[in-house]
Amino acid sequence: MDIKKYFTQRTLIINKMLSLFIKSLHDVPPTLQKSMLYSLSAGGKRLRPVLLIATYEIFGGKKEDVMPAACAIEMVHTYSLIHDDLPSLDNDDLRRGKPTNYKVFGEAQAVLSGDALLTNAFTVLGHNAETKNIKEKNVLDCMRILAKYAGAGGMVGGQVADLGAEGFLQGKKLHPDKKLFKTANDLLNYIHLHKTADLISASVEMGAILACACEKDFKHLSDYARRIGLAFQIVDDVLDVIGDKKKLGKKGSDARNRKLTYVSLFGIDQSNIHAATLISQAHDEVDQVSGSIKAKRVLHEIADFIVKRDK
Amino acid sequence: MDIKKYFTQRTLIINKMLSLFIKSLHDVPPTLQKSMLYSLSAGGKRLRPVLLIATYEIFGGKKEDVMPAACAIEMVHTYSLIHDDLPSLDNDDLRRGKPTNYKVFGEAQAVLSGDALLTNAFTVLGHNAETKNIKEKNVLDCMRILAKYAGAGGMVGGQVADLGAEGFLQGKKLHPDKKLFKTANDLLNYIHLHKTADLISASVEMGAILACACEKDFKHLSDYARRIGLAFQIVDDVLDVIGDKKKLGKKGSDARNRKLTYVSLFGIDQSNIHAATLISQAHDEVDQVSGSIKAKRVLHEIADFIVKRDK
Repeated sequence: MDIKKYFTQRTLIINKMLSLFIKSLHDVPPTLQKSMLYSLSAGGKRLRPVLLIATYEIFGGKKEDVMPAACAIEMVHTYSLIHDDLPSLDNDDLRRGKPTNYKVFGEAQAVLSGDALLTNAFTVLGHNAETKNIKEKNVLDCMRILAKYAGAGGMVGGQVADLGAEGFLQGKKLHPDKKLFKTANDLLNYIHLHKTADLISASVEMGAILACACEKDFKHLSDYARRIGLAFQIVDDVLDVIGDKKKLGKKGSDARNRKLTYVSLFGIDQSNIHAATLISQAHDEVDQVSGSIKAKRVLHEIADFIVKRDK
Repeated sequence: MDIKKYFTQRTLIINKMLSLFIKSLHDVPPTLQKSMLYSLSAGGKRLRPVLLIATYEIFGGKKEDVMPAACAIEMVHTYSLIHDDLPSLDNDDLRRGKPTNYKVFGEAQAVLSGDALLTNAFTVLGHNAETKNIKEKNVLDCMRILAKYAGAGGMVGGQVADLGAEGFLQGKKLHPDKKLFKTANDLLNYIHLHKTADLISASVEMGAILACACEKDFKHLSDYARRIGLAFQIVDDVLDVIGDKKKLGKKGSDARNRKLTYVSLFGIDQSNIHAATLISQAHDEVDQVSGSIKAKRVLHEIADFIVKRDK
């Protein structure tokens, strides 16, 4: 099992399909199409679509069956990055080493490109209803999973909580949602779970639903996803402080903005230990999913990749 | 047929259900929930959900059956207003006579509240899959209709085209999408069709799909919707110039910003004539839909309301 080769093969198809799906949207102003493709082509890891595909493949399905759902989740992820980089949010000039969407296309266009990617993610997901091996009912369930994990009680909720987190650590001011977040730890857990882990949960759960996984397998896969998602954000916090700036493609803006992170709360050593524990638990969850050890190998490898990555 | 009473009755239930749906979203930061409810409760006409309900009712269904889809379309409409009012877009301080979302909650929260309303519109739509008289397959079709008309080749495309329209009329600069829009009229038609008419089309088409309308009826209803949608925007352009500012609840910002509008291109008289023609054609379309004259009365009345309204 060569995980790099696995990612490369799938990333190639994902990139091709993302471009095809965007170009197949009818009557789109060329500037908007260009701006959507700019951010989609900015060279991400494609972790979420690959996770969706890998989960689906455990149950014997072919990756081609779930390309629409896989591309939909990447579109939602990309929209969230575009909006996150806006001047009124993180105000980031660089993303993956390239100028952010708003730096290239202006703020108004960046807001609207994000809106379009989010909306048309559901158009692209809808194409999966035409796939021979996919049940329409499961596509509808995917819509609900995607909206739940990406929405107000999911990724957007995590971003809102994060907005109010600056200065919380220093005790300079209270969080606007102080009733929900009594301690810095409460707040940090909420941000990590929702801002990052939720979309990873959506990816794995959608893959499992499309593969008609049984309830027991679904539960283990869902727990696997949440654990690797939480570990992913902790590692991100660590890399933001110690990682090679060039590799990360941004300027350690979390530390610069004194945001609440796992590292700022518990230090680097404790962060690394917690991430390793989560990954170990994630492995246990995958072991309990039915199917051959070989088929499940990719999910194990992805879990390990998350803690070993340097960007 | 008292159209005001019809609107009042349905608006009451829509408002109640919108609030219930938002409050039923799990694990949402209170500030985000507050901001979403603020804009949803700002007292719009609820034209889109009422149109969805009225279309569904033509075929004998009960309004309660389609409340999720009706609320979903209002959430999409509301998100578009929140983002449209942002400083980087229209920079409007007032909406329906109240401070806009970003003026109350700040720009970052307004971006994210819009994102949440758009995303969770699909959560709310998903509830319709649990409705006894509604087919799951039709809810899936509604997802595709909503995403198409709200996305890059729909409402968002219209907003992007509108962004580049300032100054076009005066010939001061070319539109960034000049290949698509050779004349001011091309551009205006694109903006009207997509920025406004598309979401009205989505409302009517979703109502028809959920009612299992036949292909012929669907076509007539779809044409009806496009025509009243275009008329709606022309009347909006006229009201922006001559309307009672208080009633409109905004400061005639289109004229202030010298935007490309039907009035700026053809004058007020020609605009009124064109709107009346579209409404007449809309009536003809409804006449060709199967069902009793009584059942279709509401769609006729809504068409008339669009040209007669003063806000």
